[in-house]
Amino acid sequence: MNPNVSEVMGKLAYRRLTDIPDSIDLAVIVVRASLVSAVLQECIQKGVNAAVVISSGFSETGEDGRKLEAEMMETARRGGIRIIGPNTMGHADTSSNVSTLAWTKEIPPGPVGLIAQSGNLGNRIVLQGIDLGIGFSKFVCSGNEADLHFEDYLEYLGQDEDTRIITAYIEGLREGRRFFQLAREITVKKPIIAIKAGGTKEAARAARSHTGALSGSEAVYNAAFRQAGVIRVGGDDELNDVALALLHQPLPRGNRIGILAIGGGLGVVATEACEREGLVIAPLASVTIEKLNALLPPRWPHANPVDLVGIGPTVDNSIILSSLWALMEDENIDAVLLQAPVAIGTNYLSNTFHFNAEEIKVFDDGQKQNLDMLRKRAAEYGKPVLVVTPVNDPETNAYLLREKIPVFTSPHRAARVLHHLTWYRGYLDANQS
Amino acid sequence: MNPNVSEVMGKLAYRRLTDIPDSIDLAVIVVRASLVSAVLQECIQKGVNAAVVISSGFSETGEDGRKLEAEMMETARRGGIRIIGPNTMGHADTSSNVSTLAWTKEIPPGPVGLIAQSGNLGNRIVLQGIDLGIGFSKFVCSGNEADLHFEDYLEYLGQDEDTRIITAYIEGLREGRRFFQLAREITVKKPIIAIKAGGTKEAARAARSHTGALSGSEAVYNAAFRQAGVIRVGGDDELNDVALALLHQPLPRGNRIGILAIGGGLGVVATEACEREGLVIAPLASVTIEKLNALLPPRWPHANPVDLVGIGPTVDNSIILSSLWALMEDENIDAVLLQAPVAIGTNYLSNTFHFNAEEIKVFDDGQKQNLDMLRKRAAEYGKPVLVVTPVNDPETNAYLLREKIPVFTSPHRAARVLHHLTWYRGYLDANQS
Repeated sequence: MNPNVSEVMGKLAYRRLTDIPDSIDLAVIVVRASLVSAVLQECIQKGVNAAVVISSGFSETGEDGRKLEAEMMETARRGGIRIIGPNTMGHADTSSNVSTLAWTKEIPPGPVGLIAQSGNLGNRIVLQGIDLGIGFSKFVCSGNEADLHFEDYLEYLGQDEDTRIITAYIEGLREGRRFFQLAREITVKKPIIAIKAGGTKEAARAARSHTGALSGSEAVYNAAFRQAGVIRVGGDDELNDVALALLHQPLPRGNRIGILAIGGGLGVVATEACEREGLVIAPLASVTIEKLNALLPPRWPHANPVDLVGIGPTVDNSIILSSLWALMEDENIDAVLLQAPVAIGTNYLSNTFHFNAEEIKVFDDGQKQNLDMLRKRAAEYGKPVLVVTPVNDPETNAYLLREKIPVFTSPHRAARVLHHLTWYRGYLDANQS
Repeated sequence: MNPNVSEVMGKLAYRRLTDIPDSIDLAVIVVRASLVSAVLQECIQKGVNAAVVISSGFSETGEDGRKLEAEMMETARRGGIRIIGPNTMGHADTSSNVSTLAWTKEIPPGPVGLIAQSGNLGNRIVLQGIDLGIGFSKFVCSGNEADLHFEDYLEYLGQDEDTRIITAYIEGLREGRRFFQLAREITVKKPIIAIKAGGTKEAARAARSHTGALSGSEAVYNAAFRQAGVIRVGGDDELNDVALALLHQPLPRGNRIGILAIGGGLGVVATEACEREGLVIAPLASVTIEKLNALLPPRWPHANPVDLVGIGPTVDNSIILSSLWALMEDENIDAVLLQAPVAIGTNYLSNTFHFNAEEIKVFDDGQKQNLDMLRKRAAEYGKPVLVVTPVNDPETNAYLLREKIPVFTSPHRAARVLHHLTWYRGYLDANQS
């Protein structure tokens, strides 16, 4: 509806909500802050009991805004209307195909539910997630949380059958104790991955002026997250990295990592990245060394990290894959960081090797079967395999993601993910009954 | 030449080096390790005084290899032949258009010189650099450094007029004192950005088996790098990020950062990232607040980070740009982290806003002029502007890079770069006469 015109972008606009003949499940309110209460009043008359208030200019702006927000909430409570926002960019629910976002891009359905205390950060996370092949069940920008709080959305996603992984951008929690209780209950069933922003002085001040959120003590948040099994990440890249791994790979039983790399330097860097993340570079079992002796040239280093010493990518990648299976079968190894090509794109070939890319079939059935096998074995053994392509080639990365193989743009990112996975597994071992 | 065949991939092959009628400037040797000395013997007869020994199987493999390497060096020294390698992936020199790399992709010429103690890491850095629009003067994989050491290449690049920025992947230095002296002399004229790998226990062991390098004490390296003005980075992403900023933007005079963001959450996250990197969130000068009052809606937060509160991207982006100029003119601000669109691609528009992308000219003359102005002002004021696109859109990022605007995929990466730039500037202030 629009009080001033009868048509908006070719669609019929009603002057008043009560002019609409059908019943209304959800009102999306985008009028000036001072007019929101009046619209809610019409919602009451029309029997609407849910609204998304996109309008800003409320408590985030100071005293006058706080008064407007209180007034709005008084009207909403009187009429039994529940509210997302105000000062929100909206929400999306792929289960029921409802979106109140100002986007045209479709959000693919999937098992990740995201609660964001910032519309822009939420957008960044979702769009980046889509690029990684991540699908979403629900996405809500919680805005000022005048009515529905972060904790309400969390409780809902905890129970939601379409949501298998919960991700969150948090600036400040209004119900700390409730959050803690909910998180403890949820994380033993499904992971919660969260960014908690506003942990430094000026950032806390900025958060206050953004959504009126009190960021709270960094130490308290850290302790609460740790005790409630919440995976705390530093930024949106890391958040999606962890979600990607949890989506496609099992949790490792421990923190002993096997590294397979197509070059010595790649192995050194991956090893250092893992050690800095508190992971253990597993000593190879003697049976693994024997298996690798049969596969690799005699000069291979006979230790973890396993350097393929000059074994380049081939179309079937059989030696790389056989070496990978050997590491996965090693009882000393809980997870594998693979920095060798398990699939090869034309760009990768022509950029780095004297292959004539035209003559080589890439991303064919053979490669697909290899990747199916990789996923299958990872699930069977309960050992995640995280891939870092030796050359960061977008074409190859996109192919691997389509085939549900988690791929990361640097060994540091993969090592960080392995750190989180092993920490979460440790939490579950200690807390799951 | 090839002793067994007379043609390789359609090219004439000589049986012996001495059969070649022309004089030879550089020999590239790719035979089995045990045969290298014999080939060098032929080089002596032919009067060749430089060789790239790609062959591996030398000191990196143990006692036998060490002997072969000593034997090879004896021959080389006797004949006055200087050697890159062995166990190298080769080198490239865009000034003289010579490449001994096994690549087909052309390396664009430019002011960055790279010395890599790992071929694979070097490849990763160069290919990723090319994607960022970085050009290279020289690229050398130093291999086992039997003859020419890292320090020789460093000395050369320090004097090379085509090299304005030196980047390096280091596992271990054979001439620590010489490195330190050279670095101290060079960094006051041109920056050195280095990854030093092998800083953890298992990584040091892996480095030893990779190129026979002794990683040395982490504390000693850290102190030496700091005192010699070497910018130490954690990985290849960070290395290219810093190179990109140094390539296109001035060094900031200090560490006081202005943040301009198209959303509150983006501002909060960028603020926290900057604070964690030891940067200062500058209080805005009152004249800046006045300028922004004239540009932004009354509810803007009146403080740094500057949230554009709902000012979306427009085709000319005039408000965003005017706000940026206001921050750059602020005497309290040394550098700007910009998380707002200064150029807009079709994907960005159609993914996130109800724009009809077909109707909007993107990347047109107007946008180009804005970016020219941005670069010009940054140089004039001596204030770098680092861009993080609010939505990580490859199309927009590629456009900005083509226009020589440094763009980073997350505020954390941009803040890390600002940390390095301010540190290096501080080093120069204290050490430049």
